[in-house]
Amino acid sequence: MKILKIALIVLLSFHFGMAQSNQPAIVEDFEPAISNQLGSEFPQVNSEGRVRVQISAPDANYVQLDIGGVKYDLVKDDDGVWTGESEPQDVGFHYYQLNIDGASVPDPGSRFFFGACRYGSGIEVPSDDMDIFANKNVPHGHVHEVYFPSESTGVSRRAFVYTPPCYQKETTSNYPVLYLQHGYCENETSWPKQGRANFIMDNLIAEGKAKPFIIVMTYGMINDVEFGRIMDFDINPFQTVLIDELIPYVDANFRTVSNQSHRAMAGLSMGAFETRLVTLNRPDVFSSYALFSGGIYAPEELKEHDNLKLVFLSCGSKERPERIATAVKTLKENGYNAVSYVSEGTAHEFHTWRRSLHQLAPLLFNDLD
Amino acid sequence: MKILKIALIVLLSFHFGMAQSNQPAIVEDFEPAISNQLGSEFPQVNSEGRVRVQISAPDANYVQLDIGGVKYDLVKDDDGVWTGESEPQDVGFHYYQLNIDGASVPDPGSRFFFGACRYGSGIEVPSDDMDIFANKNVPHGHVHEVYFPSESTGVSRRAFVYTPPCYQKETTSNYPVLYLQHGYCENETSWPKQGRANFIMDNLIAEGKAKPFIIVMTYGMINDVEFGRIMDFDINPFQTVLIDELIPYVDANFRTVSNQSHRAMAGLSMGAFETRLVTLNRPDVFSSYALFSGGIYAPEELKEHDNLKLVFLSCGSKERPERIATAVKTLKENGYNAVSYVSEGTAHEFHTWRRSLHQLAPLLFNDLD
Repeated sequence: MKILKIALIVLLSFHFGMAQSNQPAIVEDFEPAISNQLGSEFPQVNSEGRVRVQISAPDANYVQLDIGGVKYDLVKDDDGVWTGESEPQDVGFHYYQLNIDGASVPDPGSRFFFGACRYGSGIEVPSDDMDIFANKNVPHGHVHEVYFPSESTGVSRRAFVYTPPCYQKETTSNYPVLYLQHGYCENETSWPKQGRANFIMDNLIAEGKAKPFIIVMTYGMINDVEFGRIMDFDINPFQTVLIDELIPYVDANFRTVSNQSHRAMAGLSMGAFETRLVTLNRPDVFSSYALFSGGIYAPEELKEHDNLKLVFLSCGSKERPERIATAVKTLKENGYNAVSYVSEGTAHEFHTWRRSLHQLAPLLFNDLD
Repeated sequence: MKILKIALIVLLSFHFGMAQSNQPAIVEDFEPAISNQLGSEFPQVNSEGRVRVQISAPDANYVQLDIGGVKYDLVKDDDGVWTGESEPQDVGFHYYQLNIDGASVPDPGSRFFFGACRYGSGIEVPSDDMDIFANKNVPHGHVHEVYFPSESTGVSRRAFVYTPPCYQKETTSNYPVLYLQHGYCENETSWPKQGRANFIMDNLIAEGKAKPFIIVMTYGMINDVEFGRIMDFDINPFQTVLIDELIPYVDANFRTVSNQSHRAMAGLSMGAFETRLVTLNRPDVFSSYALFSGGIYAPEELKEHDNLKLVFLSCGSKERPERIATAVKTLKENGYNAVSYVSEGTAHEFHTWRRSLHQLAPLLFNDLD
């Protein structure tokens, strides 16, 4: 009997050992994410890009981390604290939430960002190039929160306007403007918050790599459009707000150079789709067009586009990079100044778009005095 | 047996009826709060100021609304959706959270505000004077998010700077400045977000009731100080940031009038305590002092304060209004221009402080050209 017991224990140990060795080893170098609330120890990220969350929920039946479309079960300790981690995530920024007994809630340890159609939790998975958007000891521009009158929608609408560091001091200079759109289920806070557009610009300008220019970011979801039905989108309401209301407001309230050659438009995902439609409808307004993870231009679409200076197409290497490479090749063969950029190791996510802005900015307005 | 059963049912019904009639009747005129996320039906508030929350948590054992230091049990329906409401709350803005099986989490239906030492849920309970901070169809100033260099703390520090509507257009005018501090466990976002300082100013200026001036809001918790041990607070680190770093930055980057008579300081709660200390230490820097729900000045403290133009003391009627009335009376008897203000029906909460700013602003800088 004793021998049988020992045999069983050995067998179980072996089995358990086997099971364990099938689990991926987790590298125990987790650190609090830089996207956390001040002083929050969790969520954490390790060098593999795994996200570890922790929450006290002594009376819960189960708690899960819900990130990247997958739910990961957490484990409860004797104090009622639940802990668990995800598979490795791509570098960059990801929206996530917790699931407590079926309730989808924000993680109180994270700061909150607008994405996935709501203000909720987000996490920064460190990348080798985080430096491009770090808050460094360089001169900083301002991000102005502005409310502009909009007759077409009947309300004061919000925009964020980045002015470069020199703007407040060189008070007789006027600047070119980039109009920069967020994606589906994001809003006007997405580029200045998780997109860190202001820090990307501050750092580029400090290094002398980009000309100082203004960036204007506003809400682009004037129409309801279901996810997956983007082709049904009616661009007119947003185009009216942008062209007939926001641009005149910006030109009246900021020291801009108010003409086509000093105006660019860019957007990510649905914002790229909007950029494409607006620039095709109104070739007189913008002189540089950039689509991040959202569409291409064909040469024949750009025929009447006088003074078109730049077409910029980008996406993540985990999207369909061959599509933009082909499009840019075709555009170049037809005499257009077209540039493609592929973000290595990322998908349809904000790090792809931060990198895209970082690549685009040095190309904008650099032919101007 | 049957008769006994019926008797029992009658008795229980009567008892239940009694119990019900002891419950306060709830007025069923709930509406989504204006502080909600776009499109969120919950939380809601009724005309009594009750807050009703709702969340789907099919597998939870219990869910509570945690507001104003009290936890209220929610009730689950057949679909696993929990609903419940609080006792009536004071008008104005309140921080709250949900408790799901012991986990304290933000309510996903609310927008997020920094207070109670974290970004979390907040709710606006309607008041008769909400109009003072509404986003109206009037000219709007800008709220600039700025990062200023701080040698003393070794980092780029953040501030929000409100510039009045005329600032962007009258580009040769210079403006006076109010330095405005948040309270304990709030931060530099608290005044522009839940405080709605920009809308209060936009509306006052549009009505011709306040002179246009700049407002600067930065983080004041440079020292760790435990709640309740405010008297141990060392003002020096913050005073250095404010006087030696932030003011020079603002004067260099905004069109200010850079002298004592064009500079005021105000704060709420701990920010009032800081305002008191800084203004007493440095009578050369500010000419108007305002304490919202946090302390008083005695006449003998202000003896060397040349060119002191205004002392403003306020609090909620549910705080200790007699204290500020007495202090202001004494100041007046000693020849100071002192003003008191009591916010009716509110306590140590943001609506008290919005109303205080609304009362203070028309008194500031109105002796200047």
